[in-house]
Amino acid sequence: MSFFRPNVDQIQGYVPGEQPQETGWIKLNTNENPYPPSPRVIEALERAIRGRLNVYPDPLGTAFRSAVARVFNVEPDWVLPANGSDENLTILIRSFIDPGELVVYPYPSYILYETLVDLQGGRHERMYLRSDWTWDPEVRDERLRDAKLAIVPNPNSPSGNRWGDDEILKLIPPSGLLVLDEAYGDFADTPHRAELLRGDQGERIIVTRTLSKSYSLAGIRMGFAIAHPDLIAGMRKMKDSYNCDALALAAGTAAIEDQEWMQQNAAKIRATRARLTTALESMQFQVVPSQANFVWATHETVPHQWIYEQLKARRILVRFMRFAGVPWAKGEELSGLRISIGTDEETDRFVAALREILAAAPQ
Amino acid sequence: MSFFRPNVDQIQGYVPGEQPQETGWIKLNTNENPYPPSPRVIEALERAIRGRLNVYPDPLGTAFRSAVARVFNVEPDWVLPANGSDENLTILIRSFIDPGELVVYPYPSYILYETLVDLQGGRHERMYLRSDWTWDPEVRDERLRDAKLAIVPNPNSPSGNRWGDDEILKLIPPSGLLVLDEAYGDFADTPHRAELLRGDQGERIIVTRTLSKSYSLAGIRMGFAIAHPDLIAGMRKMKDSYNCDALALAAGTAAIEDQEWMQQNAAKIRATRARLTTALESMQFQVVPSQANFVWATHETVPHQWIYEQLKARRILVRFMRFAGVPWAKGEELSGLRISIGTDEETDRFVAALREILAAAPQ
Repeated sequence: MSFFRPNVDQIQGYVPGEQPQETGWIKLNTNENPYPPSPRVIEALERAIRGRLNVYPDPLGTAFRSAVARVFNVEPDWVLPANGSDENLTILIRSFIDPGELVVYPYPSYILYETLVDLQGGRHERMYLRSDWTWDPEVRDERLRDAKLAIVPNPNSPSGNRWGDDEILKLIPPSGLLVLDEAYGDFADTPHRAELLRGDQGERIIVTRTLSKSYSLAGIRMGFAIAHPDLIAGMRKMKDSYNCDALALAAGTAAIEDQEWMQQNAAKIRATRARLTTALESMQFQVVPSQANFVWATHETVPHQWIYEQLKARRILVRFMRFAGVPWAKGEELSGLRISIGTDEETDRFVAALREILAAAPQ
Repeated sequence: MSFFRPNVDQIQGYVPGEQPQETGWIKLNTNENPYPPSPRVIEALERAIRGRLNVYPDPLGTAFRSAVARVFNVEPDWVLPANGSDENLTILIRSFIDPGELVVYPYPSYILYETLVDLQGGRHERMYLRSDWTWDPEVRDERLRDAKLAIVPNPNSPSGNRWGDDEILKLIPPSGLLVLDEAYGDFADTPHRAELLRGDQGERIIVTRTLSKSYSLAGIRMGFAIAHPDLIAGMRKMKDSYNCDALALAAGTAAIEDQEWMQQNAAKIRATRARLTTALESMQFQVVPSQANFVWATHETVPHQWIYEQLKARRILVRFMRFAGVPWAKGEELSGLRISIGTDEETDRFVAALREILAAAPQ
């Protein structure tokens, strides 16, 4: 006999990308930043670990919220810190979705959204994207009609493409809210700074951000949401009192305050992204023009899973992904490789290994 | 127009104890440990902050789970690490409670449970304790009959008393599970080590623990649940992939591995608890015999709120608490002071201040 809620029993749970805990891997599978965090982060942590770890952290994350507010040109009460962007997504779904209510999201995209909705007992539907990763207006508007939340990553994953503001504003459900998951926002050529929130429809949009990617702090778990204060105040009820610990708050504040460090790394990643794209195209991969810290590459003839396994045998991890039910894909299943942008050296070693592998590919 | 779920709009949200972020306070209000964490924790953090903060932490917390398993004499798959005990309580309620299902808990006790159940859309009922903090068997059994979960802190808060195993085993709902919140378990004269989980009814019990109190790590947010592996596996689906960050895992593992440090501090706190109890009784307070790192003190004639305010004016914080609807209390409202056990020096200063305050009390 199970005491679990039926929807908990039924779901599999989300499986994150492989995380080997030993060194020696070239890890291009979970979109981590290959560069270390700002030295100011380490200095802040050095102070914090010698501070008062025996007392509770600031439940409101006051210093962190002020730092974010300065960068995004909003007031601190527009900011909700969280234990990674994952926690903010959970808070959002728990705040707005009663059992049976509808969440829509683009597809192919980040399937964690479906798991989170299933755990809450909501419904989810997919807004199928076209093969060039643009919106089908008819599908989009039909799905949005009954949605309480639309969750849209921009740039999208796995494709890495980014939709313009005009397209984004069309994604606000007529009776609901748009969650703009900007996990990869800082890698775009022209990153957002909450401009949409200050526009006419700003009260209907919630932006989520993470420090895992652009700020090189995946190990720390720090994210934040930005939205109008009424929305933030309601969401705050849903969070644990002390959801962000003293070290994450110290590290996160220092990271946000060192914009120059983040921007320099983002610029390096954009440059490597261009080199990697060229190299992949020279090997007959199709590569979606990326505004993120990864690229989505598909090969016409060589099986993606085989490439993934050959790379893994050489201790290089990329993400082999399969999306079922994609109308325009061969056999209605889209498969491909999502390759995170590493350092130039990692990228060179990856490209060299890939050339060898393709040369030996079964015909 | 609000897009929030009606039950989110309706609730106030839990208000934690005051957390002044500046030093200079004697802080006896949120049951923190007055002693610093083990030096091995700081060493582990020193290594971790120079490690690879740019990559994701181990989603399973393997090293932490092994350390806990050794101390509690279980296998690692009996252990679920969480971002503080709060997160495990949220995971538990989200795992087992569908809208309208019943959670019961003793009263007066930790009212956060009610907030968490409200946020999920469940129902909650109180198992009213008698004035000596013992169970009324009739009330208990009537409430347990329809409960999916019973959540029982042991030692209890605010009273600090601890129920024996015989009493605890009677708290398993006939069609549900018992959650034993042992946040203060290590301060008991004879702490549990998961013995109940290995007994006949062990599959119906989940123990939650925190490192905030006995391990002096309130700033870190690290807790864990212990239960049979089937329960842990289901609960794991509900957690974010990376709910515990790399620094919390490093600190938590080192803390668990230094049992001697924790035990020495717990012993000091027990000794100070005895001294404080004697001092309070000499000032005409009634003090419940405590097995926790705080005491519950009530005064027959001097108003508790006034004492709290006088102490606060001297930069000493204790927790002034009020519990409505307590049948045996004056005006059906129980009020009192919950006083955390500080260092001997803090306790001496607190006692001296309290003597002054009472000497000047309005008659």
